[in-house]
Amino acid sequence: MSINSFGRLFRVTTWGESHGPGLGATVDGCPPGVAIDEAQIQQWLDKRKPGQNKYTTQRREADEVKILSGTFEGVTTGTPVQLMIENTDQRSKDYGDIKDKFRPGHADITYYQKYGVRDYRGGGRSSARETASRVAAGGLARAALNTLAPGIEIKGYMTRMGAHEIDRDRFDAAEIDQNPFWVPDAQAAEDWAAYLDGLRKSGSSVGAVIEVVASGVPAGLGAPVYGKLDTDLAAAMMSINAVKGVEIGEGMSAAMLTGELNADEIFMGADGPEYSSNHAGGILGGISTGQDVVVRFAVKPTSSILTTRRTITKSGEETEIITKGRHDPCVGIRAVPVGEAMMACVLLDHLLLHRGQIGENQGHIG
Amino acid sequence: MSINSFGRLFRVTTWGESHGPGLGATVDGCPPGVAIDEAQIQQWLDKRKPGQNKYTTQRREADEVKILSGTFEGVTTGTPVQLMIENTDQRSKDYGDIKDKFRPGHADITYYQKYGVRDYRGGGRSSARETASRVAAGGLARAALNTLAPGIEIKGYMTRMGAHEIDRDRFDAAEIDQNPFWVPDAQAAEDWAAYLDGLRKSGSSVGAVIEVVASGVPAGLGAPVYGKLDTDLAAAMMSINAVKGVEIGEGMSAAMLTGELNADEIFMGADGPEYSSNHAGGILGGISTGQDVVVRFAVKPTSSILTTRRTITKSGEETEIITKGRHDPCVGIRAVPVGEAMMACVLLDHLLLHRGQIGENQGHIG
Amino acid sequence: MSINSFGRLFRVTTWGESHGPGLGATVDGCPPGVAIDEAQIQQWLDKRKPGQNKYTTQRREADEVKILSGTFEGVTTGTPVQLMIENTDQRSKDYGDIKDKFRPGHADITYYQKYGVRDYRGGGRSSARETASRVAAGGLARAALNTLAPGIEIKGYMTRMGAHEIDRDRFDAAEIDQNPFWVPDAQAAEDWAAYLDGLRKSGSSVGAVIEVVASGVPAGLGAPVYGKLDTDLAAAMMSINAVKGVEIGEGMSAAMLTGELNADEIFMGADGPEYSSNHAGGILGGISTGQDVVVRFAVKPTSSILTTRRTITKSGEETEIITKGRHDPCVGIRAVPVGEAMMACVLLDHLLLHRGQIGENQGHIG
Amino acid sequence: MSINSFGRLFRVTTWGESHGPGLGATVDGCPPGVAIDEAQIQQWLDKRKPGQNKYTTQRREADEVKILSGTFEGVTTGTPVQLMIENTDQRSKDYGDIKDKFRPGHADITYYQKYGVRDYRGGGRSSARETASRVAAGGLARAALNTLAPGIEIKGYMTRMGAHEIDRDRFDAAEIDQNPFWVPDAQAAEDWAAYLDGLRKSGSSVGAVIEVVASGVPAGLGAPVYGKLDTDLAAAMMSINAVKGVEIGEGMSAAMLTGELNADEIFMGADGPEYSSNHAGGILGGISTGQDVVVRFAVKPTSSILTTRRTITKSGEETEIITKGRHDPCVGIRAVPVGEAMMACVLLDHLLLHRGQIGENQGHIG
Repeated sequence: MSINSFGRLFRVTTWGESHGPGLGATVDGCPPGVAIDEAQIQQWLDKRKPGQNKYTTQRREADEVKILSGTFEGVTTGTPVQLMIENTDQRSKDYGDIKDKFRPGHADITYYQKYGVRDYRGGGRSSARETASRVAAGGLARAALNTLAPGIEIKGYMTRMGAHEIDRDRFDAAEIDQNPFWVPDAQAAEDWAAYLDGLRKSGSSVGAVIEVVASGVPAGLGAPVYGKLDTDLAAAMMSINAVKGVEIGEGMSAAMLTGELNADEIFMGADGPEYSSNHAGGILGGISTGQDVVVRFAVKPTSSILTTRRTITKSGEETEIITKGRHDPCVGIRAVPVGEAMMACVLLDHLLLHRGQIGENQGHIG
Repeated sequence: MSINSFGRLFRVTTWGESHGPGLGATVDGCPPGVAIDEAQIQQWLDKRKPGQNKYTTQRREADEVKILSGTFEGVTTGTPVQLMIENTDQRSKDYGDIKDKFRPGHADITYYQKYGVRDYRGGGRSSARETASRVAAGGLARAALNTLAPGIEIKGYMTRMGAHEIDRDRFDAAEIDQNPFWVPDAQAAEDWAAYLDGLRKSGSSVGAVIEVVASGVPAGLGAPVYGKLDTDLAAAMMSINAVKGVEIGEGMSAAMLTGELNADEIFMGADGPEYSSNHAGGILGGISTGQDVVVRFAVKPTSSILTTRRTITKSGEETEIITKGRHDPCVGIRAVPVGEAMMACVLLDHLLLHRGQIGENQGHIG
Repeated sequence: MSINSFGRLFRVTTWGESHGPGLGATVDGCPPGVAIDEAQIQQWLDKRKPGQNKYTTQRREADEVKILSGTFEGVTTGTPVQLMIENTDQRSKDYGDIKDKFRPGHADITYYQKYGVRDYRGGGRSSARETASRVAAGGLARAALNTLAPGIEIKGYMTRMGAHEIDRDRFDAAEIDQNPFWVPDAQAAEDWAAYLDGLRKSGSSVGAVIEVVASGVPAGLGAPVYGKLDTDLAAAMMSINAVKGVEIGEGMSAAMLTGELNADEIFMGADGPEYSSNHAGGILGGISTGQDVVVRFAVKPTSSILTTRRTITKSGEETEIITKGRHDPCVGIRAVPVGEAMMACVLLDHLLLHRGQIGENQGHIG
Repeated sequence: MSINSFGRLFRVTTWGESHGPGLGATVDGCPPGVAIDEAQIQQWLDKRKPGQNKYTTQRREADEVKILSGTFEGVTTGTPVQLMIENTDQRSKDYGDIKDKFRPGHADITYYQKYGVRDYRGGGRSSARETASRVAAGGLARAALNTLAPGIEIKGYMTRMGAHEIDRDRFDAAEIDQNPFWVPDAQAAEDWAAYLDGLRKSGSSVGAVIEVVASGVPAGLGAPVYGKLDTDLAAAMMSINAVKGVEIGEGMSAAMLTGELNADEIFMGADGPEYSSNHAGGILGGISTGQDVVVRFAVKPTSSILTTRRTITKSGEETEIITKGRHDPCVGIRAVPVGEAMMACVLLDHLLLHRGQIGENQGHIG
């Protein structure tokens, strides 16, 4: 039931502060026999690493993961896996000014009101560095998925930065890994580069929308009503720092459609049922259909900007604050690998749950 | 961990099929001493009742709730409360035609693939009648909230029907209970009436957006990172039948804002911290700020429409299907009280969790 | 996480009071396709039924179970199953005297202190009638086990009544269903009959030890360290009303053994590993070995006896109490089918968990 | 739901292998503001440390705990606390001989059958070193208890070693910390010393019974039926390596009593209800009475003895095994601080649960 964990059979508990000795993830329930080593997990952290390009935080972190338990001779043992990443570049002094002030738009004030104790350095646990733990856990989930369900592929990318949206007609998956925005649209990559340069220099920030698609997902995952696959995906994405909205398939736009436009008709393909479209985002009644699972989430613009903001101190005095030090003009960029990691964890959890309650799909069509 | 339950301390497990003997909710963890009787819960079910106006399903249901356990001499005992609603108007014959066909856009096919058994009558458990159980549980949650946190008020209303959105400048809360759409805009109520008449006659359907606002919520609820208040609200709303998107505060639009526009500045009011705006929707870092908690969710148009659709049978033959019998041209209307019920359950759960882990808020400002 | 539920994948939440309209169990996670009807569950309730012989409570109850959800055309659908038993013979007036007094040895005082509300009629929820819900859930578990693991057999019996213990040399399983004590020793059945007659007439009561054995359990069930099979069995038995001790295999006696006497040596049989003895009770390191799983639990003597006891009232006045009305001279007798039901539920839960996390056993010997 | 965690609000997940880089505990849900540092936790580990006297394992371990997260300026922040203990003295070569053989009485064979992977070095995760993690978590629980419920005191001690039982008439609590057995009986300490010397030299082993008493526990903790305090204590103790039986109060002996002998009568004391005796062990109907909570558990003799035993290899060949290297003639001795740690964790969890669901006890007597 833990309040800082997610998942039911593949269960992840993250721990650690932005400026503590380190952070990590305790992963319980990973199936045994999954080949895994630090390099396999490291690749996903490297994708996330700050300082990677000029558009993301200028904090130089090794973000090196260590596996402290749960493996033996290169495979998982089925017992809890402890993944740990040491904090090496913390620059506490960058945060000394805000010790008694609450940064608007951040969890500083709410953490303080709730706990009466606040690790003000770098945002403590609410910091986006917590997501490094998730990416590490996602790396383990991916390795397990490769073993259990090798057909599953997961890809995340940005579809919007501020007012700029990609052109779906120009969608090119090959572009995703070719630009710093993981955007599947070469033209957008250019436009956004210029736009973000401007924002960075002016000390402002902008929001983003990230889409994560999982293909090769077998039909049948998800247990209605509250163990629905889309419910767990929504929770997983909403739990990412700074996320304010989550969509499955058509998402909020489904509200604007009529029944005729929204329904995905069914016909028979060579290997089983196929669908004329995918407005549903791969999930019907909370259960996967076998189509691409499509999830989108919106990340708000960071409130750590170089404009003076009104705020108060712990003692209730009104004051101003300006965030110096390292910040992200678009935190959404680094949320892409995090969204992929959450997709991996949720899918693996549901594969195990499905296997547990059902074994194999019971209903055959054709 | 149950897959058909939600909540951690105030835990609800719903059960029952659309065409079984009845349905209900087992509510565990309700605090003792809460005054409750069947009438108090019934009022919320009456709000939801089908056949209430010509815009919702023409199924005449008493939807009468009985309390089978957990109370004594008019108050809760602290032990599990069993709420049960008998099914009285089932018209199974309306569904005989679809016994072997899968209705596009419904969970028929995924349920069958997963379980190999499908109660085809009325959609079995995936039916929206399952939400009657939730509304009942929500009624109990509201009663507990009245005792524990009497300042909290919860109000839900529609903000969009298909292409029609309310005009926020005409927002009038008093209108909500005055029209069949629970829409806070008298003009919209008129326009939508005409629009929906047209849809009903043509046998089509349309989606909707519902907004639920909770005011008087104390600051400090929610436990980062995965026990966040917004994570639980997202899961709760996404779990409602036919929901495809969930938003908190600015929601998906937050992606389009810059940091300056999005941040809610903080100043000191008479009773404590106050905010210049509420883009955050009352939640920062997963913890409530004390501002209105604002959640929106999108309901897709029902796929039970009177247009012939392509589909397949259990044996894989291609065929067509047309849904006769009772249907909802806009299922979103009846999702309003369901959204309110989910808000009540989640807030109560978090009040108890907060009281359990923290006691009272530890940090005092001023 | 619910506080009134047990199990992780096969999850049971019981509800209902001794003198409410009824009681029951919500069972979530039962695999689909299990053939089940009311008669199959009823047989286990009939085994438990009060008024069955002159040694148990003289309360005439039909204890008729109804299945309200979760099945279709005679098999489980995979959705929550609601089992309900109506209360028909409540005789509230028998308990009117004790309205303000706390019966020593019962939960009256602790319930009152905790909840401030106490359903004094028949012990409310703490009453042993709650176990009817468990036996019903156990009936469903047994049906699922028959489908999933047909080799598993579960048998419970008494091994001790007060100072009287069975003679293991006279152990005869065929005797178990031939006497009112479910004791595998014909001589003991005779001796205990006379003994209990005396106790009943004098209005006294006595404790008991029940042993439950499951044979045909595959090796590999249980997940160290806290999801151990023996941990869950201990919790399950200790949760039965009036239980004060639980043992696995040698149990408390293991403390008196040396390593040589206690170890079960391993050799190779025709079908795999076999053991020279079973001091371990079929569980090593929390995982089943494939041997008989042997659990014992001790039930204290009921405190509802016809001797006057000192106690206090709600207002703190010292007084006396004598329990009239129906009571059980040996509640242990009816705990036998309850112990069997708990064994069935825990084994099924672990079979599903094992299938979920592992699939099939990964290590082959030979 | 995690299978390797326990607790509901104060939730502990342990991780780590006997011969991995380290082991630890992730503790989630600790209330904020609890003063804690490494020394406070270290004291409990030192109590447990191997090599402490000639009667326990001759493995020299620093067992130094580090706090990696969850604290700031000397107090808990309310976020997950990561406790880590490095493994420094592993002597893998001592275990090389048993790489392919299963040690009788150990989890070697069941782990292998289940997971197909076995970290044979030192028993992997099933090793008693896992309990160091628990003792560390217990240290944190004790610190929280000191803040939340300062009247609670927890004391564990041995009451039996093999055939030798303490004489309750000679019970002297002051003796507990004065001898290597934590036995409250000076005479027993002498007798057992001689006995154990003999066992150690002959390479044999013996079992033990440990009793843990918590005094100053408020009435009202525990939530019937499955969240009972005794259920959680039973599970907690049974989960300790090598435990085969658990008792509350009279325990298994309750079976031998009559109702008159077993019932604890109630009378009114200066500060509230008091009891004439404590056969119940401080728990009635699963809820604490305010009396001493008394739990006992039996530890079997270790199977790592210096007598040759019959066993098989992974390939199914029959062979013999003799355990060399470090071993414990009486593992029960070191289970004493582990039992205390489990008591602390369970009591804290229930204090938080109680505060969460109930707030304060609702029923006042007098």
